[in-house]
Amino acid sequence: MRTPRIPILKLHNCLLVSIQWELDDQTALQFQEDLLHKIHETGASGVVIDLTSVDVIDSFIAKVLGDVIGMSKLMGAKVVLTGIQPAVAITLIELGIHLADVQTALDLEKGLETLQQELGE
Amino acid sequence: MRTPRIPILKLHNCLLVSIQWELDDQTALQFQEDLLHKIHETGASGVVIDLTSVDVIDSFIAKVLGDVIGMSKLMGAKVVLTGIQPAVAITLIELGIHLADVQTALDLEKGLETLQQELGE
Repeated sequence: MRTPRIPILKLHNCLLVSIQWELDDQTALQFQEDLLHKIHETGASGVVIDLTSVDVIDSFIAKVLGDVIGMSKLMGAKVVLTGIQPAVAITLIELGIHLADVQTALDLEKGLETLQQELGE
Repeated sequence: MRTPRIPILKLHNCLLVSIQWELDDQTALQFQEDLLHKIHETGASGVVIDLTSVDVIDSFIAKVLGDVIGMSKLMGAKVVLTGIQPAVAITLIELGIHLADVQTALDLEKGLETLQQELGE
């Protein structure tokens, strides 16, 4: 069976990704590759990654997430993370993934607003 | 392995779904169930289903799609289909799935606009 892939939606100059189920390692790596390709292909200047439905995150997925945010920035796209649940926040900090300069927001709507404001400046 | 599921994003009063890879039967049925649950749970009044990246569609998937549109309507949500490719349009018509009273639009942005206008009326 193929690796399931996470759809990436394009809305105006932003990409939207909603991770709604626990990722396995292969899907996470595929997502990393797909997102970077999509940024390149669409010239998107912002990305919202919504984690509202993610209850837990393991160290590998946390690392992939940290990496993809860094990579997106290198490519010129701002990333906003939304809907981080308590357990996920705890894991990220405990693993030393501080995401210090990443914007966060409560939900997808607010994430998009934040991004539009930043990009509008 | 679990059935891969299609993420459903909520943006304001609309749900966004982007189908970016060929669906197998199980995933399509799971999507039908997930979408109806999500409409119920969020009270969304519109749904945009984006098929931009779908090249081909078989008779089972076409039927599930036709069904889910009808079901969403029954639940009070307007559906807009976007990005239907030529081969998909041909298959739908040849299978007798006319989707006569379904709004369509070129892409996700235009689909959302159409929906916002309709809902605003």
